[in-house]
Amino acid sequence: MRKIEVCLSPELIHLHQLEGKVIVVLDVLRATSCIVTGLAHKVASITPVASLEKCRSMKQQGYYIAGERDGHKVDGFDLGNSPFSYMEEFLKGKKIAMTTTNGTFAIEKSRSAEDIIIGSFLNIQSVVRFLKNHQNDALLVCSGWRGHISLEDSICAGSIVEDLKDDFQTDGDTSIAAKALIKAADGDLISFLSDSSHVQRLQNLNVKEDIEFCLTPNQYDVLPILDGDQLVSLESISV
Amino acid sequence: MRKIEVCLSPELIHLHQLEGKVIVVLDVLRATSCIVTGLAHKVASITPVASLEKCRSMKQQGYYIAGERDGHKVDGFDLGNSPFSYMEEFLKGKKIAMTTTNGTFAIEKSRSAEDIIIGSFLNIQSVVRFLKNHQNDALLVCSGWRGHISLEDSICAGSIVEDLKDDFQTDGDTSIAAKALIKAADGDLISFLSDSSHVQRLQNLNVKEDIEFCLTPNQYDVLPILDGDQLVSLESISV
Repeated sequence: MRKIEVCLSPELIHLHQLEGKVIVVLDVLRATSCIVTGLAHKVASITPVASLEKCRSMKQQGYYIAGERDGHKVDGFDLGNSPFSYMEEFLKGKKIAMTTTNGTFAIEKSRSAEDIIIGSFLNIQSVVRFLKNHQNDALLVCSGWRGHISLEDSICAGSIVEDLKDDFQTDGDTSIAAKALIKAADGDLISFLSDSSHVQRLQNLNVKEDIEFCLTPNQYDVLPILDGDQLVSLESISV
Repeated sequence: MRKIEVCLSPELIHLHQLEGKVIVVLDVLRATSCIVTGLAHKVASITPVASLEKCRSMKQQGYYIAGERDGHKVDGFDLGNSPFSYMEEFLKGKKIAMTTTNGTFAIEKSRSAEDIIIGSFLNIQSVVRFLKNHQNDALLVCSGWRGHISLEDSICAGSIVEDLKDDFQTDGDTSIAAKALIKAADGDLISFLSDSSHVQRLQNLNVKEDIEFCLTPNQYDVLPILDGDQLVSLESISV
């Protein structure tokens, strides 16, 4: 039986073997939710880059540039980290370069994997279906917040593990913790997470609508996958 | 209000400031449970050391030597990692040098803190009382398993945070996760943890009695504290 593991922080990724794995990067609030939303709204590609400088320089190559640090859009960038801004009509068919505090760092750290896909609550069933059909072991990488573990990514990972329990073998600790958290949330993620540090940090930034949207499962049937340096919708590279 | 944080793996300790903090090292299965048991049974001191070689060399200085790797007692050592072996009459008043897979590593990583104490379910109320009376912020360091997060240490940390909620301010994620896990355990830690990877690993080593003992709260009113290089019972250095 294939195996599935969860890495709760990019700072723990060295504990896992990446080679030969399919990795799902999760940054629910808000980088991977933005990526999913953008590709669902027909953005051509999103290229994750580690630094603000690199991202800024890509403007001259025709990219729209998205830059977020500590929850704020960076001055001079076209886009920040609100999923609603990735729905804009003018972005259709365009290329975006993106740098964020946590999500793009997690993608960088995952580079030696067989395949890297992007997950969020918004496309959770697409992720589950892709993993069911993939031949390889899976690793879910939670982006967290500056290395710290975040509840919303942990719960999203837990939901994926639960949905795959008939197809993948998991270690006991992950599935016990995930089950406990999902049960505690009792179907109301927004209330459950309202005290979490990340949600409170974002609420201070007045992004309540972003949070509610990012915590809503299955808004899009889209699967972002890393193709070279850029994330594209799976259908655009499938045979 | 003082602050309390939880570090779920020694591999994440660089994310926390240690200076000026009181650190509680937790390695429920089984290093810190052994330390608590030994000092409760009047062992004079337990000196944590990082390597097997260093530990072995301390035999010539009159120490009883305790060595465990991957759950097994190391050949040629006097003691392994079963708390029952730390109750032996012949250890009273004697000094022990100890090296373990996870717990002694977590203690090493915590060295720059103001105070380092040792926690486990066995002495959880002594830990809570000490922290209530301490002036400083607190950090609970879970030893985990080779860097991976373990449920039993996480739940022990969560229980301490819960007991201190009127005295310390905590970040939301830790307390939400802890509450969910403690609620899911529903007063029966042994059943709840029976599927966990660490417990299963130990059950394969036939240490069922060790596990049940280590998960029993408040067996001892003893507080191990690091004094120079050695852990001693707090009362032996108190004014």
